[in-house]
Amino acid sequence: MRRKSIISPEIEEILKLPNKDEEIRNLFMDLHPRDIFTLCEDLEPQQNAQIIIALGSPVGIEFFQYFKTRLQRGIFQHFSKEWMAKVLENMAPDERTDFIRALSKEKTEQILPLIAQAERNDIKKLLQYKKDSAGSILTTEYAFLPQDITASEAINQIKRQAFDRETIYYIYVIDNERKLLGFVSLKDILVANGNELIKDIMNTNIITAHVDDDKEQVAKKLSDYDLLAIPIVDADNKLIGIVTVDDVVDVIQQEHTEDIYKYGAAGDYVDYMGSHPRLIAKQRIMWLLVLVAMGFISGMIMERHAYQLQAVIALAFFIPLLSGSGGNAGTQSSTVIIRGLATGEIHIKDILKIFFKELSIGGMVGIAMGILAALRALVLNKDMLLALTVGSAMIATVIVATTLGALLPLLFKKMKLDPALMSGPFIASIVDIVSLLVYFRIAVLVFQ
Amino acid sequence: MRRKSIISPEIEEILKLPNKDEEIRNLFMDLHPRDIFTLCEDLEPQQNAQIIIALGSPVGIEFFQYFKTRLQRGIFQHFSKEWMAKVLENMAPDERTDFIRALSKEKTEQILPLIAQAERNDIKKLLQYKKDSAGSILTTEYAFLPQDITASEAINQIKRQAFDRETIYYIYVIDNERKLLGFVSLKDILVANGNELIKDIMNTNIITAHVDDDKEQVAKKLSDYDLLAIPIVDADNKLIGIVTVDDVVDVIQQEHTEDIYKYGAAGDYVDYMGSHPRLIAKQRIMWLLVLVAMGFISGMIMERHAYQLQAVIALAFFIPLLSGSGGNAGTQSSTVIIRGLATGEIHIKDILKIFFKELSIGGMVGIAMGILAALRALVLNKDMLLALTVGSAMIATVIVATTLGALLPLLFKKMKLDPALMSGPFIASIVDIVSLLVYFRIAVLVFQ
Repeated sequence: MRRKSIISPEIEEILKLPNKDEEIRNLFMDLHPRDIFTLCEDLEPQQNAQIIIALGSPVGIEFFQYFKTRLQRGIFQHFSKEWMAKVLENMAPDERTDFIRALSKEKTEQILPLIAQAERNDIKKLLQYKKDSAGSILTTEYAFLPQDITASEAINQIKRQAFDRETIYYIYVIDNERKLLGFVSLKDILVANGNELIKDIMNTNIITAHVDDDKEQVAKKLSDYDLLAIPIVDADNKLIGIVTVDDVVDVIQQEHTEDIYKYGAAGDYVDYMGSHPRLIAKQRIMWLLVLVAMGFISGMIMERHAYQLQAVIALAFFIPLLSGSGGNAGTQSSTVIIRGLATGEIHIKDILKIFFKELSIGGMVGIAMGILAALRALVLNKDMLLALTVGSAMIATVIVATTLGALLPLLFKKMKLDPALMSGPFIASIVDIVSLLVYFRIAVLVFQ
Repeated sequence: MRRKSIISPEIEEILKLPNKDEEIRNLFMDLHPRDIFTLCEDLEPQQNAQIIIALGSPVGIEFFQYFKTRLQRGIFQHFSKEWMAKVLENMAPDERTDFIRALSKEKTEQILPLIAQAERNDIKKLLQYKKDSAGSILTTEYAFLPQDITASEAINQIKRQAFDRETIYYIYVIDNERKLLGFVSLKDILVANGNELIKDIMNTNIITAHVDDDKEQVAKKLSDYDLLAIPIVDADNKLIGIVTVDDVVDVIQQEHTEDIYKYGAAGDYVDYMGSHPRLIAKQRIMWLLVLVAMGFISGMIMERHAYQLQAVIALAFFIPLLSGSGGNAGTQSSTVIIRGLATGEIHIKDILKIFFKELSIGGMVGIAMGILAALRALVLNKDMLLALTVGSAMIATVIVATTLGALLPLLFKKMKLDPALMSGPFIASIVDIVSLLVYFRIAVLVFQ
């Protein structure tokens, strides 16, 4: 594949030609829509709209589906009303629902009447399901069979369904009311005797998800059972659609983003490039103000020890070092525990084992850090008492920080709260307070 | 499904019966291996070994494969030599390579001679590939066809291959030397005319990965192109195996874990529950010492301003608040930028736009935080000058921290370094230094 930087100007030239549609088709003929996306993603929305029109359905539509929703919206507004309808009719149902949710209500009401009846009904139905539910990521283009036909008849029916189904490798067996009776894989049908009935081949012990289930749970189920697709049913066990494995990766990536935002105490995820700074600031300010309030406590502790600070001003010099080191050690252990709880590697029942583990880890790293800090005090400040204070405060702070960083997420999990709320900044703020208390307690003892 | 806590003692009772194998088979007959895992994962390794022997192949082996490698090792040592060989022969090749890598060399050399020739060769070949390469996660159980047969003949061949292939939905067309010629999906073959030749149906524009490619890249390619499997070839374009979509989720989860460890400056991932505290401490200590060294700089800055601190000791009370707030604001923006770079939502070319965005976000949240901090100084310390110093230092620190937190990861990316190295603790340490410089500069101006 040629480099983007080489081909981009070439595409721009082609788009100025009178026979641009033909030239575009020739240029991209043999490429996978994903490769077309890689080549064109940085072009102007209007240019991408022209390319989609030139490529038509299905390649142009598939290419369109690779853009993020915000960029899709930008391209979409360069289409004529007819093309808007055409694009919506031909998008995959799950992608389409996502996209329409992002359009304004007026826009949706303008376009809906132009769309063919079948797709319009499908859109309206899927829009009813809650954001982030299984219903919001399902596709209605699944393959299905009745239970009373033979394997050979089934293969003929599947061939007919093949052209517009998301997958024909997993086939769902339903009755007249669309109630889910069972499941067969294409492999099962293929290796079966041609005269066998579907109801004798099908698996009735079937893994399903409910249309209102959270999409993260659905993705986890699909990947736990190593499925290619999972059927989504309503309360009456009627088949509504399927969620396919390619959507799982997107869901996991989104979940990952949310996790990382929590770790960074950055608030809820918002589309960064597309959002106004005011909106982003609103997401971030809450945690910052909570942490400022916690910072006030550190100030109060220092105020109470103003006398010691006045007497030995060098004590103050080590405060950023101590609280920073404690914060870092606590962030490390909380990171490991929060992630371990998320992957299932760590369980609450191991809390005692974890406590002793972190205690000894904290001891080991704390002693190394304490020696370093004490040496610093000895060499630069030439004060034996100060070195003793700083060194032992460092050891104590790091041990407390390491064990607190591990125990707080476990405690949150135990209280059925999200352990990820014990984010780095939050742990750091708690440890700040603890480290000051420890430091002054030791200072009072040493300098008395 | 019954609750684990109810069924667990029941299983333990059954394992004491003389006809335990039969009882175990009856109990688990209709369950998916994943559900057996959910029910039994907390049993003792020896008990799980008994269950695997009772269930036999394939269900027992599939159940075994759901355990993490460390737990598999624990179960494995309760097998007889013959059962060890049997388990290894029947595991999926990709799972098996992973597992054998974790065994000791002596153990491996003991067992290998007991394994059937074909599997032994397969194991030896796969063990050659580097850890974390495509070769380390591929399976050799793929479906393949020659190019000169018809679609109907192909279906017969596929039926014969079906029972022991990881997938028969993607089929690879190879020549006598196993060179990869093309790819057909089972769907393509099914909808083709029965007399059509495979070489006329197959797709020759095929997405492949190299056996030495990093497994993360392979997983990304597979998911970018929405494939069910991707063929892995060597330098001569010979087909070595395939990586299937179910492995992608595992790879992504591992990558996620590594990312989060970087964010928390927690070192490289090690199996937490299975590792000695010394090993975990070793992973964490490096970053901690680097951050201690950076903390020394903060101390030096304070030392240089010992005179101001002596004169207005209340200045010291606000240092933890300022550096903490700066660290938190910087962690927020670096989190958002690092994640955006990873998902492709943010590009380096947007650096100017991002700079102005963070500048205005920093301004907004900084003013709110500055007012809060100034009020605190005014109410509790009743010192107008102090309030002015603290308030304006807070605003300046937060603005600088927010923009630095965003720009440093972009700079790292630009220098082809991993932006995730600009982790929370690291940003916080840099901001610590900056906030002290800003604070004392303002203090000198105000209190002169």
